[in-house]
Amino acid sequence: MSEARTEGERLAELAKRRGYFFGASGAYGGAAGFYTFGPQGAALKSNVEDAWRDRFTVREGNFEIEAPTIMPEPVFEASGHLDGFDDMLVECPGCGESHRADHLIEDHTDIEDAESIPIAEVEDLIADHDLQCPNCGAHLAGEPVEDFNLMFETNIGPGSSTPGYLRPETAQGIFVEFPRIKEYARNSLPFGATQIGRAYRNEISPRKSIVRTREFTQAELEQFIDPERDEPDLESVADVGVTLYPAAEQQADDGAYVETTIGEAVESGIVGDPWIGYFLGIAREWYERVGVDMDRFRFRQHLAGERAHYAADCWDAESEVDGDWIEIAGFAHRGDYDLSKHGEHSDDDFTIFRQFEEPKRVERTVVDPDMSVLGPEFGGDAADVRSALEELADRDPSAFEGETVRVTAGGDTYEVDVDVTNFRVEEQTLSGEHITPHVIEPSFGVERTVYTILAHAYREDEVDGEKRTFLSLSPAVAPTDVGVFPLVSNVEELTARAEALADDLRAAGFSVVHDDSGSIGRRYRRQDEVGTPFCVTVDRDGLEGDAPDSVTIRERDTARQVRVPIESLVAELRAVESGEKAFDELVDTYELVAPGADA
Amino acid sequence: MSEARTEGERLAELAKRRGYFFGASGAYGGAAGFYTFGPQGAALKSNVEDAWRDRFTVREGNFEIEAPTIMPEPVFEASGHLDGFDDMLVECPGCGESHRADHLIEDHTDIEDAESIPIAEVEDLIADHDLQCPNCGAHLAGEPVEDFNLMFETNIGPGSSTPGYLRPETAQGIFVEFPRIKEYARNSLPFGATQIGRAYRNEISPRKSIVRTREFTQAELEQFIDPERDEPDLESVADVGVTLYPAAEQQADDGAYVETTIGEAVESGIVGDPWIGYFLGIAREWYERVGVDMDRFRFRQHLAGERAHYAADCWDAESEVDGDWIEIAGFAHRGDYDLSKHGEHSDDDFTIFRQFEEPKRVERTVVDPDMSVLGPEFGGDAADVRSALEELADRDPSAFEGETVRVTAGGDTYEVDVDVTNFRVEEQTLSGEHITPHVIEPSFGVERTVYTILAHAYREDEVDGEKRTFLSLSPAVAPTDVGVFPLVSNVEELTARAEALADDLRAAGFSVVHDDSGSIGRRYRRQDEVGTPFCVTVDRDGLEGDAPDSVTIRERDTARQVRVPIESLVAELRAVESGEKAFDELVDTYELVAPGADA
Repeated sequence: MSEARTEGERLAELAKRRGYFFGASGAYGGAAGFYTFGPQGAALKSNVEDAWRDRFTVREGNFEIEAPTIMPEPVFEASGHLDGFDDMLVECPGCGESHRADHLIEDHTDIEDAESIPIAEVEDLIADHDLQCPNCGAHLAGEPVEDFNLMFETNIGPGSSTPGYLRPETAQGIFVEFPRIKEYARNSLPFGATQIGRAYRNEISPRKSIVRTREFTQAELEQFIDPERDEPDLESVADVGVTLYPAAEQQADDGAYVETTIGEAVESGIVGDPWIGYFLGIAREWYERVGVDMDRFRFRQHLAGERAHYAADCWDAESEVDGDWIEIAGFAHRGDYDLSKHGEHSDDDFTIFRQFEEPKRVERTVVDPDMSVLGPEFGGDAADVRSALEELADRDPSAFEGETVRVTAGGDTYEVDVDVTNFRVEEQTLSGEHITPHVIEPSFGVERTVYTILAHAYREDEVDGEKRTFLSLSPAVAPTDVGVFPLVSNVEELTARAEALADDLRAAGFSVVHDDSGSIGRRYRRQDEVGTPFCVTVDRDGLEGDAPDSVTIRERDTARQVRVPIESLVAELRAVESGEKAFDELVDTYELVAPGADA
Repeated sequence: MSEARTEGERLAELAKRRGYFFGASGAYGGAAGFYTFGPQGAALKSNVEDAWRDRFTVREGNFEIEAPTIMPEPVFEASGHLDGFDDMLVECPGCGESHRADHLIEDHTDIEDAESIPIAEVEDLIADHDLQCPNCGAHLAGEPVEDFNLMFETNIGPGSSTPGYLRPETAQGIFVEFPRIKEYARNSLPFGATQIGRAYRNEISPRKSIVRTREFTQAELEQFIDPERDEPDLESVADVGVTLYPAAEQQADDGAYVETTIGEAVESGIVGDPWIGYFLGIAREWYERVGVDMDRFRFRQHLAGERAHYAADCWDAESEVDGDWIEIAGFAHRGDYDLSKHGEHSDDDFTIFRQFEEPKRVERTVVDPDMSVLGPEFGGDAADVRSALEELADRDPSAFEGETVRVTAGGDTYEVDVDVTNFRVEEQTLSGEHITPHVIEPSFGVERTVYTILAHAYREDEVDGEKRTFLSLSPAVAPTDVGVFPLVSNVEELTARAEALADDLRAAGFSVVHDDSGSIGRRYRRQDEVGTPFCVTVDRDGLEGDAPDSVTIRERDTARQVRVPIESLVAELRAVESGEKAFDELVDTYELVAPGADA
C-alpha cells in the first residue's frame, strides 16, 4: 500500500499530519496555489532562509535589503513584466475551467518546452491532437488561446487611485533601489545586493504541492559587476565537483551529463562565464549542506529558446522528485538589461562612475561655423547645414582636410569653405566614464528547496521490529535540534530533571522540544517523523545507579544510543550537530545502550 | 540649525543616508506609504523579529506558523473586515486629494478620537469648523464623507476569477488555520500560535514615516485559553514595574499615570484580566531589552469607545517621539469572537473538547410518539405535532406530568395523550463538552518598534572636540556587532591581520564589518552613526612593541578604548555584547588607551 504511493503523496500526508505544510484556508474549501506552513515547516523554512543569508549575504559581504511587495505600475512598465509576463490560457467551453495551453500540450504529446511555441501554433496543436479538458472532457479544438498576465493587480490609495502590482520577483525591489544601494556600496563595483521575501504569480493552474504556487518566497542575489574589470574568486570553488547538463548534450541523441569541476567547466568553456561558474560552485556546496541529495541534483543549461532575449547564459539548479526534475534555482547572466531599462524609464541614475586607470586625453572635433556667412548664403537651410557639418566632423574628420567640404541638408547638397566652418580638433582630459553595471542573478525558490529537502530526507525502515517513518534532515535546517524526555512520565524526579535540562539546552542555544506524554517509544517516533536529529533521555540509571549524572543521546537515523555524562552533554551535542564529530565517535567514547533497553 | 529639526526629521535624514530606510521606488517619484529597508534597517528589523520570536514563541513554547498574505473573500466575510474595516474618506472638490475626515477634525479642533464619531456628525463638524483641504485650501463643507474599506483587493486565478484580499492583519492566518493548529497542540488548551509577517492597509493618507504605512510587518501572538480553567504564570512577572494610563485617569480632570507593578495592577483590578497583565509584563521587559527608553513608554488602556464591541479589555503599548505617543503594540482580550465567527461561517470545527473533571450523568428528555396513533388523528400535521412535542419536552418537561399535553402546530392547538407521546427521562454519561477557546492577542508593529528604537537611540555629542552623531542601539538589535579595522590602511601587516581577525570573529558568531577606507576617525564615526556597539582596531603596538598580540576595543557611547590581548577578545566581546559585563569592568581590567591617541 505505502509502496504504491508517490514520493509527493507520502510527503503531503506527512507534511499535513506533522505540521510541515498544508493547503491554506481549508476551513473555507481552500484556495488553490496557497499553502500555510505549520510549526515544523515554518521553522524548517526559516532555517533554510538563515542558511542562505549566511552563505550568500554575510559570507559574501553583500547588502541585504527589504523592499515592499506592492510596487507601482511604472516599475513593471520598465521591467517588461506589464507587457511580457504572460502564460498561455485556454478556457474550457464545457466547464469554464482555465488551463495552461502549453502544459496541456506537454502532458499529452511528446513536445517539450511548449512555452516557447507561438500562440497560433499552440491553437493548431490543440486541434491536431484533439486535446480535451482534463476536468470535464470537453474538446478544446477551436478555442482561443490567450496571453494571461501573471501579475496580481490591485489599487493603491483611494479616489483617483493608481494601479499597483504584487511583485512577481523580489529582484525588481533591488533594481529599482539601485541608485540608493550603490551609495551604501560607496559607488564602487563589484557588490551584491540580496533580498529574501514573498513574490506572487497568478498561476493559471497551480500544481505539484508547494512547487508551483501563487505566493512563494524567493532568495535572490543581484551581483553588480564591471564586465571589463571584475572577476570572481573562482579559485575558491575550482575543485567543487558538479553534474552538468549542457544545452548541447540535451540536444544530442546520446546526450549525457558531464561530471566535472567548476574550474574545468569554466576553463573548457562549458560554463561560459566565470561569475556563473562561481555561483554554481557555492550553490552546489550550499545545497549539499542543507540536505539536498547530490545524486538527485544537476545543473541544466537553458536551451537558446528558453532564455530571455537579453540573457547571455542561464543555468538552472534542478532536483529530482518522483522522477521529475524541478527547477529550484536559476543562475542568469542578465547583462545590463535591468539597470538600462530602469535608467531609460526613470529620472534616476543607474550607472556607476568608472575611474580610468589614468586620466585620458581624448581628441574631440569641434565645428563652429560663421553663421553671418552661412545665413545669407543658405537662407532657411543654414541651421540644417550647421547640424550636418557637426555630424560630419564627428563621423569623418578627414572630410575637412581640403579647402571646401560638402554636406547634404534638406535634400540639397551644399559646398562650404572649410575656413568658414571653424573646424578644429581639441584635447580633453577625462578621469573616467559612466557605465551601466552588468548583473549576474542567482535566484533561489525557498519552498522548492524545502520540498526537495523533505522529499530527499524521507525514509522508511524498521526499528525494534516496528515499521518506522523518519526524516533524515540535516542538523543545519532541522526544525528542532534536540528532543528532551524523561524515560517515563510518572516519576517526578525524572520529569523535573528533564525539564531543567531542556531549559539548560535552550540557554546554550539549542532549539529544544520537551515531551513527556505517552510511551518513550512513541516520543522517539514523533521526533523521528519531524526529523529531530538527536534525542536526550533522562532515566533512573542517570540519576543514581551505575552511571549517576548521565543521560542517553539517541541518533535519529540509526536509533543507536550512548550514555553521556551530563557535564559533557552540551559540548558533545554541539560537536555532532555541527558535524565536527560523527556519532560513531561518541559510540567509541561512551557506553552504547542496548537497543530497546528503554522502550 | 540641527537643534530646530524634529526627532523625526533628524531620523529620516540619517535613515536614508546610512541605509536604515527610505521611501520606496524613489526613481519613479515614490509610492506613498511604502518604504524600503536598506542594509542597516533590514538587519535591525530582522534582529527585532528574532528577539520577538525568542521571547514570544520559543520561550513561551508557542507554535509559529507562516500563512499566505492573500486570502479568499469568505475569510473576511467571517472576520468582519469586508463590512467593517473602513476609514472615513472625504475628497477635496478642488484638487481631488483624498483625506481622512477624522484626522482633519483631530488636527484642526480640540476633538480627540474622532474615529468613533458617526459619519453624519463628522460631516456637520467639517461644516461647523469650516475645514479646508490641507493641500489646496478648498472648503470641504458640504462634501460627502464616505466609508472607505482599507483592504487591498485583487483577483485570484484567471477566467472566472475569485476576489481575494491582502490580509489586513496576520491574525486571520492563525484563526483560519485553528482546526489544524489545535491538532499540533494535541487538542489541549492553553496554547499560543504566533506569526511574523506582512500585513496591508490601503491607508487614505499614510503619514509619519514608517509609522503609518500601507505595507508593514506584524508580530502577533494568539493565546488560546479555556476561560474557566487556564491561568497565566503571573508570578513570573509580578514584580515588573509598569507605567499605566488607565481609562479612568484619561477621563479625569487631574488624570495621572499609575506607577505600579504587574502583580499589584492585577490584584487591584486596574488591569482586569490576568492574561493581559502577564503579557504587559513580558512585553515591558522585552521592550527594554531591545532598547525602548522606559521613560518614554507607557501602557494606555482603551477608552470604551475605542474598543471593538467584542473586546473585554484592551491596552496599548505606546512610545513617545517628538512629543506624540505612538501605538506600538496592542493587548486585547477578544473573548471567543474570532473562533466563533469562523465556526459559524465555515464547515470546520473551531472548538476544543473539554474533558469534565469527572464524567457527568445528565438527564435527557425523550419523546417517541406512536405515529400509528398521531397519523390517523392529525393527518398532514402529524409530523409538526411530533416536532412540537419534542421541543416542549426539552423546554418544559413538567408539561408531561398530566394525562394530556397541548402543543401548537401549523397555527392549531392539539391535545395528545401523554401515554401516546412515550415521554420519558433518560440518563446519559458525558465525558466532556466542546468549548470555543477565548483569545488574548498581543499584537506588535515591527516597523513602529524599529522607529521607536532608532528615535530613542539617537544622540549627538562631542568627541575629541568634534561634533558626533551616534545611535546608542542595544547590542541585542544593532545591525552590526563589531567593526574591525586596521589603524591605518596602507600597512599590509595591519590590514591582513584585521581581515583575518574579522573572519575569526564571524566564525565565532559575531556580525562583523571590516573597513579600511579613510582615516580611523572617519571609520569610527561611520560605525557610531549606524550604532555598532564596539570597534576593534589592529595597530602597530598590538603587533609588536609593548603589547604584542593585542588589539583595542572601543565602546561606542563613551568612545573609551581599552587594550585587550587577542586571546581574550572573543570572550570579552561576548561578555559585553550580552550585557554580562559592563565596559567599566574591561576598563578596570585592562589598559585604557589615551583618547585620540590613534585618531
